[in-house]
Amino acid sequence: MIPMSSHRMPSTTRDRLLRALREIVGAEAVVSAPDELRVYDCDALTTCHRSMPDLAVLPSSTEQVAAIVRLCRHEGVPFLPRGAGTGLSGGAIPSQGGVLIVLTRMDRILDIDVANRTATLEAGCVNLALTRAVTPYGLFYAPDPASQQVSTLGGNLAENAGGPHSLKHGVTTNHVLGATIVLPSGDVVRVGGRIADRPGYDLTGVFVGSEGTLGICTEVTVRLMPLPQAVKTILAVFRNLDEASNAVSSIIARGIIPVALEMIDQETVKAVEAYVKAGYPVDAEAVLLIELEGLSVEIEAEAPAVEAACREHRCLNVQVARTEEERALLWKGRKSAAGAFGRFTQNYYHQDAVVPRTKLPAVLREIAAIGARTGLLISNVFHAGDGNIHPLVCYDARVPGQFERALAAGDEIMRVCIQAGGTVSGEHGIGLEKREYLRLMYDEADLAAMRRVQRIFDPTGECNPGKVLPEDEDRKGEAP
Amino acid sequence: MIPMSSHRMPSTTRDRLLRALREIVGAEAVVSAPDELRVYDCDALTTCHRSMPDLAVLPSSTEQVAAIVRLCRHEGVPFLPRGAGTGLSGGAIPSQGGVLIVLTRMDRILDIDVANRTATLEAGCVNLALTRAVTPYGLFYAPDPASQQVSTLGGNLAENAGGPHSLKHGVTTNHVLGATIVLPSGDVVRVGGRIADRPGYDLTGVFVGSEGTLGICTEVTVRLMPLPQAVKTILAVFRNLDEASNAVSSIIARGIIPVALEMIDQETVKAVEAYVKAGYPVDAEAVLLIELEGLSVEIEAEAPAVEAACREHRCLNVQVARTEEERALLWKGRKSAAGAFGRFTQNYYHQDAVVPRTKLPAVLREIAAIGARTGLLISNVFHAGDGNIHPLVCYDARVPGQFERALAAGDEIMRVCIQAGGTVSGEHGIGLEKREYLRLMYDEADLAAMRRVQRIFDPTGECNPGKVLPEDEDRKGEAP
Repeated sequence: MIPMSSHRMPSTTRDRLLRALREIVGAEAVVSAPDELRVYDCDALTTCHRSMPDLAVLPSSTEQVAAIVRLCRHEGVPFLPRGAGTGLSGGAIPSQGGVLIVLTRMDRILDIDVANRTATLEAGCVNLALTRAVTPYGLFYAPDPASQQVSTLGGNLAENAGGPHSLKHGVTTNHVLGATIVLPSGDVVRVGGRIADRPGYDLTGVFVGSEGTLGICTEVTVRLMPLPQAVKTILAVFRNLDEASNAVSSIIARGIIPVALEMIDQETVKAVEAYVKAGYPVDAEAVLLIELEGLSVEIEAEAPAVEAACREHRCLNVQVARTEEERALLWKGRKSAAGAFGRFTQNYYHQDAVVPRTKLPAVLREIAAIGARTGLLISNVFHAGDGNIHPLVCYDARVPGQFERALAAGDEIMRVCIQAGGTVSGEHGIGLEKREYLRLMYDEADLAAMRRVQRIFDPTGECNPGKVLPEDEDRKGEAP
Repeated sequence: MIPMSSHRMPSTTRDRLLRALREIVGAEAVVSAPDELRVYDCDALTTCHRSMPDLAVLPSSTEQVAAIVRLCRHEGVPFLPRGAGTGLSGGAIPSQGGVLIVLTRMDRILDIDVANRTATLEAGCVNLALTRAVTPYGLFYAPDPASQQVSTLGGNLAENAGGPHSLKHGVTTNHVLGATIVLPSGDVVRVGGRIADRPGYDLTGVFVGSEGTLGICTEVTVRLMPLPQAVKTILAVFRNLDEASNAVSSIIARGIIPVALEMIDQETVKAVEAYVKAGYPVDAEAVLLIELEGLSVEIEAEAPAVEAACREHRCLNVQVARTEEERALLWKGRKSAAGAFGRFTQNYYHQDAVVPRTKLPAVLREIAAIGARTGLLISNVFHAGDGNIHPLVCYDARVPGQFERALAAGDEIMRVCIQAGGTVSGEHGIGLEKREYLRLMYDEADLAAMRRVQRIFDPTGECNPGKVLPEDEDRKGEAP
C-alpha cells in the first residue's frame, strides 16, 4: 500500500477558501459536501489507494483556473488538476488533500483549421469528441487510449497517453503543437505554436507527460491526420507466446509498420470470449491482432507479407476481417479485455512497462514464472509492436495476503523489465504508483536534474505534490 | 550587425586555464595560438559576425568534457560546445570569448542494435558516417540536413536539425531516444533511454534544440529506420509560385505525405543550372522536387495522384527520374543551391522561417515585394511541404549600405512570417541571430518561463551565454 499523507487543512482555511472559490467560479461550481467529494477520491488506479480532496472546483475558463491557482498558492494549500479520472497511475488522486481543479466543463472546441490540419480546444474536451468533430472533414486525432470515449485531451496531455494505434502514429507528445498552461505561480503561458514548430526551449515537450506537476493545461492545439483510404485487420493465432513474439519482430523487420500490433494471451482470450464473444479462438495460447492502414494498394501488398511473417513462426491460422462489422468485433474483444477481467477476477492490478521488442519472449517467460511463484494469475494483453506490455495481475482482496502478493508481483515485473533494458511506463504515467521505480532507472544526478526542473516551475511544492518524482532523500522529514 | 561583447579574460586567468586544460586533455588537444584559433571565430552564419574564443580544446571523453566544464565554472569563464561549425544561426560563435569545446574527436559509434533499431554514438560522429555504418544492415538515420556530410550528431541535436526528408520522417527530436549531457555544473546526466520511452519529465526534449545553452551533449542514442523498398523522384514545372504552392497543398490534401517536397524558384534554377546542370528548366518560374518513398506498390499508386494534383494547378511538365543517376542529379541541383548562389552573388543572408502551408502564396508575394522595395534579389528554395521557407537575400558587402539593407530585408521577412501565423525558425535554430525575434512570438511570461528553465541548468550564466533567449530587460546592465 502506498503510504498517504494525513495532512488536512484547518477548517478556518477551508472556509476562507470555499468563500473565495465561490466568488471566482460561482457557488454551483464548487463541491464541498463530503459525500459529493467522494467521487473524486481516486482515478482508475483503484487498486492502491483513495484520498479525498478538501474541496473540488469546476472552472469554465483559463482566467478562472489562474485565479484558483493564485488563491491556493496564497493560502499555501495543495492543488491539482483532474480530467475524466481515467488515469491508471494515480496522477489525479489528491493524496495530500487540497483543492481539486476539475476541467470537464472546459470542453469546447475553439478552432478547427482543416487546411493546416490543426485543432485548438479546451483541456476538458473528450478525446473521441474531437475525432467525431473532425471526421466530416476527413480528419482524425491519432492517439487513441482505451479510455478515449471519456478521457480528456488535457488528461491525455498530462499523462502523454498512447493507444493501440501509437505504433505507427506515435503518442500524445507527437501530436501536441502547443498549449496554454497556468503555471503554479498563477501566470498563464502559451507554449509551442499552432503549426509544427517550437522555437526556443521545447517547453511543450516538458509539459506533455508532466502529470499536472508543472502547471495546469487549459487549452491545447493538436495536429490532425487524414483518415486512411483503407484499413485491414488481421487475427493471427499462435501456439505459444514465444512464436507470437518472434512474429512481431519479423513483421517489423520486413519494414512494415502496422498501425496496431496487439498481443492477447490465452487467459485474456478466454475472459473476452466469456464476456463479448469477439470470435477469438479459445484454445490458442496467443493471438496477434494486426491492423494495416494506408492506401488500398499499400495494404494489399503488406497483408501477404504480414501473413508470411506469421507463417514463418508457425502460426496456426490467419483470419482477415471481411467487413467493417467483423473488424469492429475483433477490436471490441481487444478493447474490452480489462472489463472482461473485471467479471472474471475479484480485483486486478494493471501494469504498464516497455521492453525492447526482441526481449519480449524472455520477459513474458519471466512474468509467467512470477505468476507461478506467487500463485496469482497474470494475463497479458498488450501493444506488442512497440514492446509496451500490460500484465494484469489478478487477485482477490478478500483473501488475506493476496493484495500484498499482487503488489509484490507487480514490483518484480517492473524489475524484470528494467533489467531487460526497458522502462517502467509506456503510456500510463508514473503518478503516485511508480515514483519509487524511477530510482531503478535513473541515478541520483538524473533525478536531481528533473527535480530542478520541477522546482523552478513549482518552488513551493503545492502543484500536485507527491507525484512523478521519488521523494528527495535529502529533504525527507522536512515540512511539506 | 549584432552587437558583440568585448569581454576578454585577463591574461593571468588565460594562462592558468591553459595549464589546467593541458593537464586534462594533453597539450596537443588545446589550441591557444591566435592564428589557429581564428578557424573557430564563426560558424556558417558568416554574414553577421565573427568572434574568437580565448582558448579551444578538443576532448576525447565525457569525463574530459566534465572536467573542462568544472574548470570553466570554477574560473567563471564562458564555455560553449562546437561540432563541425555548420550551424546557420551563430550558436557556435564564441560571442563572449571563453573556452570553445570542440567535439570532433569524439566521433566513435559505440553501439549499433540492429534488432531494436537504435545506435549510440559520441556527439562528434558525423551524420552521414552514421548512415554509412548502418546501411549494410538495411537501416538509415533519417534527419538529413544539407550539411550532413560534415555536421555532427551533437550539433544536429543542439540545433534540432531538419532536412528535406523531415516532411515525412520528422526532425532530430523525433529520432533522439536519449543522450549523455554534461550539465553546466559539471555533473554528467543520462537523459531518456535506449528504447522509445522517456518516463519522468522529458528532459531529452528540452536538451534537443537548446543550442548548447543547457549543457553539452557528449553521447546520443538515436532511432534508426529501415531503408525504403522503393523511391520515386519527380520534378514538376510550374508557371508561377502561386500555382506551385497550391499544388503543394493539393498533394497533402490527398493524404499523400511525400518524403520530400521542395520548391525551387526561377532565380535559383538559373543559378543551379549555371553551376551543376541538374537539368532544371531555366524558363520555369517555379519547380517542385517531390520524392515518394515506401513499398513499390505504394509509390506506384501515389505517383499518379501527385501528378494529378500538379496538373490541377496547371503545371507545365512532370518528369520522373528513371534511373538512380537521374535521381541523384535532381537532388544534386537542390542540394547545391546555396553553393550556386555563392558563385552568383557576392554575399547572401540565408533565412529560415515556417509559415502555415496555406499561407505560402501570400508570404512569397510579400517576400517578392520586399525584394523589389529594397532592390535586392531574394531567391527562394525551400521545404514547401512543411512550409519551411529559406529566402536567400543576395547583396554585395562592398557596396555601402547593402549589408544593412539585407539585414533590414531579413527583419521584414521574419515579421511577415510571424504575421502569417508562422515561426522564426524551422531548422536553423535561434542562436545569436534570431534571439530578439522571439519577442515577436512570445510574450514576457512565456520568455520568463524559458528563462527559468535556462537558469536552473546554468544559474551563473557561463554556458554558451548570449544565445537563444533575448536579453532580459530586467537584467540589462547587470554584470554578465
